[in-house]
Amino acid sequence: MSRLLNDAVGELAKLPSVGRRTALRLALHLLHREPEEVSALADALTRFRNEVRFCSRCNNLSDGEVCPICSDPRRDRTTVCVVEHVGDVLSIENTNQYNGLYHVLGGVISPMQGIGPSDLKIDLLVENIARGEIREVILAIGATVEGETTLFYIMRRLAQFPDLKITKIARGIGVGDEIEYANELTIAHALHNRTEVKN
Amino acid sequence: MSRLLNDAVGELAKLPSVGRRTALRLALHLLHREPEEVSALADALTRFRNEVRFCSRCNNLSDGEVCPICSDPRRDRTTVCVVEHVGDVLSIENTNQYNGLYHVLGGVISPMQGIGPSDLKIDLLVENIARGEIREVILAIGATVEGETTLFYIMRRLAQFPDLKITKIARGIGVGDEIEYANELTIAHALHNRTEVKN
Repeated sequence: MSRLLNDAVGELAKLPSVGRRTALRLALHLLHREPEEVSALADALTRFRNEVRFCSRCNNLSDGEVCPICSDPRRDRTTVCVVEHVGDVLSIENTNQYNGLYHVLGGVISPMQGIGPSDLKIDLLVENIARGEIREVILAIGATVEGETTLFYIMRRLAQFPDLKITKIARGIGVGDEIEYANELTIAHALHNRTEVKN
Repeated sequence: MSRLLNDAVGELAKLPSVGRRTALRLALHLLHREPEEVSALADALTRFRNEVRFCSRCNNLSDGEVCPICSDPRRDRTTVCVVEHVGDVLSIENTNQYNGLYHVLGGVISPMQGIGPSDLKIDLLVENIARGEIREVILAIGATVEGETTLFYIMRRLAQFPDLKITKIARGIGVGDEIEYANELTIAHALHNRTEVKN
């Protein structure tokens, strides 16, 4: 096997859920593309990794000191949505249902993986709230054991702000899901938080 | 969304069977890798695209003028296995069942896609055979309509060599496959080319 091909396949196979077969298919596909296109891919990846920064206010990915959302004057600055990852911001933005600010924790508390509260951007969240502009914090954290632990920890840290409204996103049956495939805890939550249907 | 992230996702999403969701996941994964590792990936891709060559004898991928298989003195130079793509060489090599040379056509004849015989490395194959060392040509081409057309065309071109043995790989039920899921043509081929079982 060509050493150049082998190197390309080896590097591609380090990507998540890309095995050697897929890596080979991707590498051979690149042969059919113009060299300039392959350079554009390579440049975009290295520039992204080397130049992207984290917003000093919300820890979201940013090209500059403060991210486009935090610096947008049309966003509601009294509401902050706390999420685990950068990808969650994009998922929520895609709904077009939210106009407040975000706060990216950078993960969840996980003793198993050695991630404690100090590894997450919780102090920065408390500092932002202490400045007084924020009225509501929406905790949009995954419904996992680690997520619930993190949620509980953040609630305790925010207990020092008695006028702050703290909410968490609804747990329930996902849209498009069958009840028979949902687990008992999800069904219990969905029942407990049932909403009235007008007729 | 960060422009740098957007560029990286856009470029990754141009890869085959990588949608924007997967591209985003891959890009965010790169954030957790060292900058040097991302550079290594980018370099491997650009070097592969810019420096890889095609073997002047068999059209396989090569780092130099002639590929490692064609220049290996332990390979049987009297047998040539004709395949469509570079990836097919790797698939056959992985079986460890073949010790001859290869010939990579670079595709199959496909009037629908505007690929004619002159777009494939068929003249080079004929030239190699005309030198007289080759005794058998194994046609290892896909069992598609285009593949059969290509096979038929090559057989006609090779009719000028009366002493040359020409074979094609067996059509039949794939190992691990159920007969009930095979199509009629496959079953017909498998029946016709049945092999005797000794007891």
